[in-house]
Amino acid sequence: MEKMKRAERMVAITQVLMLKPNVLTPLTLFAEQFRTAKSTISEDLMAVKGSLLHSGHGHLETISGAAGGVRYIPEISRKEATQVLSSLAERLNDKERILAGGFLYMTDLLFDPSILRPLGLIFAGAFRDKKPDVVVTIETKGIPLALVTAEALGLPMVVIRSGNKVTEGSSVSINYVSGSSRRIQTMSLSRRALEPQQRVLIIDDFMKAGGTALGIKNLMEEFEADVVGIGILVEAQITAEPKLVEGYLSLLQLKELNPYSGKTTVVSVF
Amino acid sequence: MEKMKRAERMVAITQVLMLKPNVLTPLTLFAEQFRTAKSTISEDLMAVKGSLLHSGHGHLETISGAAGGVRYIPEISRKEATQVLSSLAERLNDKERILAGGFLYMTDLLFDPSILRPLGLIFAGAFRDKKPDVVVTIETKGIPLALVTAEALGLPMVVIRSGNKVTEGSSVSINYVSGSSRRIQTMSLSRRALEPQQRVLIIDDFMKAGGTALGIKNLMEEFEADVVGIGILVEAQITAEPKLVEGYLSLLQLKELNPYSGKTTVVSVF
Repeated sequence: MEKMKRAERMVAITQVLMLKPNVLTPLTLFAEQFRTAKSTISEDLMAVKGSLLHSGHGHLETISGAAGGVRYIPEISRKEATQVLSSLAERLNDKERILAGGFLYMTDLLFDPSILRPLGLIFAGAFRDKKPDVVVTIETKGIPLALVTAEALGLPMVVIRSGNKVTEGSSVSINYVSGSSRRIQTMSLSRRALEPQQRVLIIDDFMKAGGTALGIKNLMEEFEADVVGIGILVEAQITAEPKLVEGYLSLLQLKELNPYSGKTTVVSVF
Repeated sequence: MEKMKRAERMVAITQVLMLKPNVLTPLTLFAEQFRTAKSTISEDLMAVKGSLLHSGHGHLETISGAAGGVRYIPEISRKEATQVLSSLAERLNDKERILAGGFLYMTDLLFDPSILRPLGLIFAGAFRDKKPDVVVTIETKGIPLALVTAEALGLPMVVIRSGNKVTEGSSVSINYVSGSSRRIQTMSLSRRALEPQQRVLIIDDFMKAGGTALGIKNLMEEFEADVVGIGILVEAQITAEPKLVEGYLSLLQLKELNPYSGKTTVVSVF
């Protein structure tokens, strides 16, 4: 019976930690809640740790001392990440996704929580070591991707507005040339959205020439922010032209999109 | 030692179910993974169920038969929901949030995953009985809120674009008058975003006169969709003027925003 109680306690601890990823919970909180000794909680945590290690769904980080506690760092295994990206590439290669004008229809996938969640974990795993303070994206289609990445890293998200739509006090705007339209466009960010010297991870859904990513980098300089990484879901690699930015990580590459033959080739490059 | 194995198995089951909310997992999958009988898995699930019931973090739904299995329905307790909304109202009442023009700065909160997650659970709990098929919002600031609501309900999200920016094949546009600007604006949605007769839950961050919500309702009629609910995070209740839509649920009400005295009054009405 005592052992059974332990199992229930372990399940409850797992729940609390998984519901608040990246949030430090003091061991005393568990000890009080389950009316048991901190040493017992420590033993429970060891077992939960072992189970997580085995499943590949993340790990527990224990911080000792008075301000210490335990937190759940969500992760995705390499094997699962590979499966997720292959299956996503396969779905994107459906010829029904070719739009007039030679665009690729991705919106339904970019707005589907069950597809987004693992993608956020993949980006989080790739950039956690860079210790970003905030995840930055530009409206509109990259927002859900940036949000799940921010959540997996335990960070806030900041969204740059296209045009001059900011109604949030003073803002900084820059002009940029997007690769797809070859037109001069404007992006803006409210002054209060970023503090100076913040470490920024840029996340976006698509990169063609890299004009938008370069624009975001330039805007970040205006905020004295430090861009520590750029993560792109799908990078177009149709021409041999070099991109306007370097050092980005893309998960998928669009190698071919032929509106006449109806053939799209997206491959996973992770 | 056998009992210990059980605890680890229960933790592993909890993990798998919580990582994929609303997704049905067949019991045979667990039985194979842990090399144990289905009856043993059933017993484990009973115990996990009990633990969830106790914590208020959701419940397990078991579906019997060949196509059956178990899924985790995430929930938030009434007590936690009340705490979340009171604390959010308090933060919104900070006079630093009053912007030039008499706007309320909410963007940082609307883009913070740790604040969004419980709000999504509150909306999901309020509208689950209406059995929506899809969560619909309009860009930009409501997107994260709609996404977490969609995830809590296990549904996809659809985002209406402002203006005529849709590059996704043929689209439907309508004009509407937004309450805040009193100007005619346009909203558009790609034809392929919604199938006819879908049950739609509308989620948005803010409502003043209700012009945008009315516009979304009108656009949904064009898609022959059935609007089964409207959820609004903050509703302005400064004037006595009736709203342009009825039967919506708002979680917070903005009663007063005085740029001269610096006083904002937001209250929880949930």
